[in-house]
Amino acid sequence: MSNRILISEVGPRDGLQMIRSVMPLEAKCAWISAEAAAGVREIEVGSFVRPDLLPQLADTAEVVRHACTIPGLTVAVLVPNLKGAQKAVEAGAHKITLPLSASETHSLKNLRRTHAQVLDEVRAIAAMLRELPPEQRPHFEGGISTAFGCTLEGEVPERKVVELAEQLMKAGCDEVGLADTSGYANPAQVKRLVRAVRSAVGENALTGLHLHNTRGLGLANVLAGLEVGITTFDSSLGGLGGCPFAPGAAGNVVTEDLVFMLEAMGLETGIDLERLIEVRKIVREALPEEPLYGFVPEAGLPLGFRPASRST
Amino acid sequence: MSNRILISEVGPRDGLQMIRSVMPLEAKCAWISAEAAAGVREIEVGSFVRPDLLPQLADTAEVVRHACTIPGLTVAVLVPNLKGAQKAVEAGAHKITLPLSASETHSLKNLRRTHAQVLDEVRAIAAMLRELPPEQRPHFEGGISTAFGCTLEGEVPERKVVELAEQLMKAGCDEVGLADTSGYANPAQVKRLVRAVRSAVGENALTGLHLHNTRGLGLANVLAGLEVGITTFDSSLGGLGGCPFAPGAAGNVVTEDLVFMLEAMGLETGIDLERLIEVRKIVREALPEEPLYGFVPEAGLPLGFRPASRST
Repeated sequence: MSNRILISEVGPRDGLQMIRSVMPLEAKCAWISAEAAAGVREIEVGSFVRPDLLPQLADTAEVVRHACTIPGLTVAVLVPNLKGAQKAVEAGAHKITLPLSASETHSLKNLRRTHAQVLDEVRAIAAMLRELPPEQRPHFEGGISTAFGCTLEGEVPERKVVELAEQLMKAGCDEVGLADTSGYANPAQVKRLVRAVRSAVGENALTGLHLHNTRGLGLANVLAGLEVGITTFDSSLGGLGGCPFAPGAAGNVVTEDLVFMLEAMGLETGIDLERLIEVRKIVREALPEEPLYGFVPEAGLPLGFRPASRST
Repeated sequence: MSNRILISEVGPRDGLQMIRSVMPLEAKCAWISAEAAAGVREIEVGSFVRPDLLPQLADTAEVVRHACTIPGLTVAVLVPNLKGAQKAVEAGAHKITLPLSASETHSLKNLRRTHAQVLDEVRAIAAMLRELPPEQRPHFEGGISTAFGCTLEGEVPERKVVELAEQLMKAGCDEVGLADTSGYANPAQVKRLVRAVRSAVGENALTGLHLHNTRGLGLANVLAGLEVGITTFDSSLGGLGGCPFAPGAAGNVVTEDLVFMLEAMGLETGIDLERLIEVRKIVREALPEEPLYGFVPEAGLPLGFRPASRST
């Protein structure tokens, strides 16, 4: 198990795209700056999708430009296609993730594309990136969504996920990630699937998991991931993006709880937990109607708590 | 990792003692019967404490007598002292747990006794039990509370917990258990402490954990316990006993979520999850003001979910 874990905050993208309210640009920038100041080293700040589809993320280019001024921060964005990837490069993003849904039914609904069409897009993006000078070339991740099951198809065969991981790497991704989009994953499955994908594409080509807490298993699944060598975990401040009509049925793993678990276990995130919890205020003020989740912010830190990262 | 896991439902004791409302005897009996019918094989149904201290549990003797009529159910109770143990034996309980707080400050506050005084009580109970015919003799567990940290003392030395486990076994317990009373435990600590205690008292003398979800790590800690051979987990239906003034800051691990995780992982609990979720209705009707927690009851089961226990 690695002693140093990278938390990739996805709230400004995955959190905001799931809610109806639109957060003003200034609040987004303040949020990102405050998290970076608390020690968060990677933030997925937006998505280059059509603004009429996701007006919440229409200002992604401006958010990226702001985030890129923060020293030491890896600025990540989601891109659905070549056009989005070109915009990401123009804005200066350091990392781009293209989602490919393991469930083809979900892929057709979500991206309106078959697996073959998405893989064509990956090849086009990879070709575009190869033309760039290395210092302008973002890291290119293929994110396999619904990797642990799908609300439309149910069980997703593990063989299918392994095949797609191989195809993504062959098509030119630098790395693949696995996402539990539906909150279906369990710890045994996480270990099994990570091992299977890694043995197909190599250890360095799968370092990150995007886990949800829909059924309360988010942190248990993180633990399972840690135990098979995963070193990057996506999470969202306040679990933003949780389903507002089902209290407690949160979406993303809550960054605050995740950092607490890792730091308590002696794993360094580099994040100052008390400063991180303070960042909730910015989100709460900007989105007063959205519920924020998290057990640690409610319960407080244990008496005498000693985090692994002493200071940031 | 064992393939068959015992869930010990503690809601009727730990859940009810933490809340202000008093559940009527008939509702308690209906709750216990319904959980047993859903496949729960062990239930901690009450506590033989002074009724003026915990009026919520004043009818424990009657609850035990009812529960003992349910075929195949192990009826467990908490006892603070010899007198309580005698009452438990009279009522016919199959298992008694005496709590010993690893934090002596907590022990003085909670049981108004030092470690030495509690150990004297353990010896007196063991002597009383030895006089009984084997078929009337309940299983005697020493439950080490605040084993993972204490809200009064902070960190609790692991050496202290190991010593107390040895002393409890020497004083005549059949088994010890570890309880995360304060919700301070993390997965690395769970593994370390379980291994340390087991290597001191033997594997068979520590099979169960009582974990809380105060900081959201309940199921991750369960996973850690599973991985070092723990086969019994305490939990509470609807997380009953959660702290009502801190929404989301639940107390006990939620039985429904725990069963979901185990069954999804291929571990058999013998519990029918849909029937278990139905039992919430009984609790909700009897305690309309108490919040019930749980992610799985809110989110529902995954499409095509295949539990390890096909039917009960």
